[in-house]
Amino acid sequence: MLRTVYVNGRYVPESEASVSVFDRGFLFADGIYEVTAVLKGRLVDFEGHAARLHRSLNELNMHLSLNDNALRDIHRQLIDKNALQEGLVYLQVTRGVADRDFAYPESQTPATVVAFTQQKPIIDSPLAERGLKVISLPDMRWGRRDIKTVQLLYPSMAKMEAKKRGADDAWLVESGLVTEGSSSNAWIVDHDNTLITRELSRSLLHGITRRTVMQLAREHDMKVEERGFTIKEAQNAREAFMTSATSLVYPVVSIDQRPVGSGEPGEIARALRRLYIEASLEAMDAGQN
Amino acid sequence: MLRTVYVNGRYVPESEASVSVFDRGFLFADGIYEVTAVLKGRLVDFEGHAARLHRSLNELNMHLSLNDNALRDIHRQLIDKNALQEGLVYLQVTRGVADRDFAYPESQTPATVVAFTQQKPIIDSPLAERGLKVISLPDMRWGRRDIKTVQLLYPSMAKMEAKKRGADDAWLVESGLVTEGSSSNAWIVDHDNTLITRELSRSLLHGITRRTVMQLAREHDMKVEERGFTIKEAQNAREAFMTSATSLVYPVVSIDQRPVGSGEPGEIARALRRLYIEASLEAMDAGQN
Repeated sequence: MLRTVYVNGRYVPESEASVSVFDRGFLFADGIYEVTAVLKGRLVDFEGHAARLHRSLNELNMHLSLNDNALRDIHRQLIDKNALQEGLVYLQVTRGVADRDFAYPESQTPATVVAFTQQKPIIDSPLAERGLKVISLPDMRWGRRDIKTVQLLYPSMAKMEAKKRGADDAWLVESGLVTEGSSSNAWIVDHDNTLITRELSRSLLHGITRRTVMQLAREHDMKVEERGFTIKEAQNAREAFMTSATSLVYPVVSIDQRPVGSGEPGEIARALRRLYIEASLEAMDAGQN
Repeated sequence: MLRTVYVNGRYVPESEASVSVFDRGFLFADGIYEVTAVLKGRLVDFEGHAARLHRSLNELNMHLSLNDNALRDIHRQLIDKNALQEGLVYLQVTRGVADRDFAYPESQTPATVVAFTQQKPIIDSPLAERGLKVISLPDMRWGRRDIKTVQLLYPSMAKMEAKKRGADDAWLVESGLVTEGSSSNAWIVDHDNTLITRELSRSLLHGITRRTVMQLAREHDMKVEERGFTIKEAQNAREAFMTSATSLVYPVVSIDQRPVGSGEPGEIARALRRLYIEASLEAMDAGQN
């Protein structure tokens, strides 16, 4: 099937979906993005992603003329036109088209807006069943990882390094502490069943799924501690897992070839995954998305 | 005038020069580039830029089917078609088009190749005449600045911050030492007339102009020391300057609002600029470009 893709106000076949070579997203990685999960043809936590998009726009002094209703409409139309039941909508906004210059173009320059869908099994995910093997790598990304930019070359390289070593993904380490996964937040569960994930800062992405999982955990009387942890602490933890918009909650079963806990997906990670799916479907039934 | 732009084997009007929204250069900043100066309609040190392009390709396991002769031909044709006398040719290579995935696409995926010209006064540069005011900023770029990728958002932000503060550019500082400028290498001249610029490593770009200026300086019996220096040392230096492909040598006259030396463009910087221009024009007359 040929997807229908959104580009600057038009819905076009994916083979015709293009941007100028002078787009600042292409020349300077001067662009931001969001990925929203789709379950049963409905958006999961669109509000959270829209809010983070605005935060990224603000941090970069980037202007977007579309409001949240317009953005939501684009997402819904793409789901419709592509008959998407389960997967994601990817949205990218760049500072627009201008002759190449490190200095930003005039602020009236229209932003470039691109969005497309991807099918992906989310609820019945084989990876969630078997759990992920991760390796640790030094975190070599730039200093503003709280802004969700398209500067994703290092996460890409990290994913390839993980594959080369027979693993699924990488956890990134800076000054001895895990910052996050290559495209997910990293969590461990200690032997008192306390959930531990790094506190928010400029060093990591402020995950939307991270936040929701934290709320769900607290609603179900689990303790959550926000602090950094080492790879060694993670290897010795009861469980480890990661969160992201389209993985939801993935158990981590080994880190640098050392099994975590039993070496099988942990119970708490599996429980949080179930709670997350239930809560998302309930929110949909309540008409919130 | 509407430029003619090169995109994947075709020469097209700039208004039609586009790439797929699925290009990895657009989605992941998974692309590299080179900028070659043009003087009197001829390329300056194309070999140096081609060699560095190959280095970047290698470091990223990126494949390009075009050889250096083909790349040089593209550059020459663009100069011709755009009647360019003075300015630059910009070349960008990305890992090509594939559905969005952090993992690289199959290695047979053709690279995307884009090139275009820009007119710019290089020899009679007003900035070279008056010298640049720079500010210092923390270096927040990723850890592989030796690879010339399009992850240029932070240098862009730094340039905007400099403008906001009434300066021309920024020098970036890490662990107390200057790494380089936002898009140039940084140099100082001490009170013994020794030229000082940071040693090569993953922390900074291996400038082609930096290398040529170093050779010229040594040929003219100047001492060159490769080591890091602080902002304070630079402010107290006899002279400061920066080098890049299209600025050649720009004197720096103030750093964080403190004048360097007399606060006027320094003699050594001006001399190196003259030597660089002479050497480039001689190499052209010798038919090397």
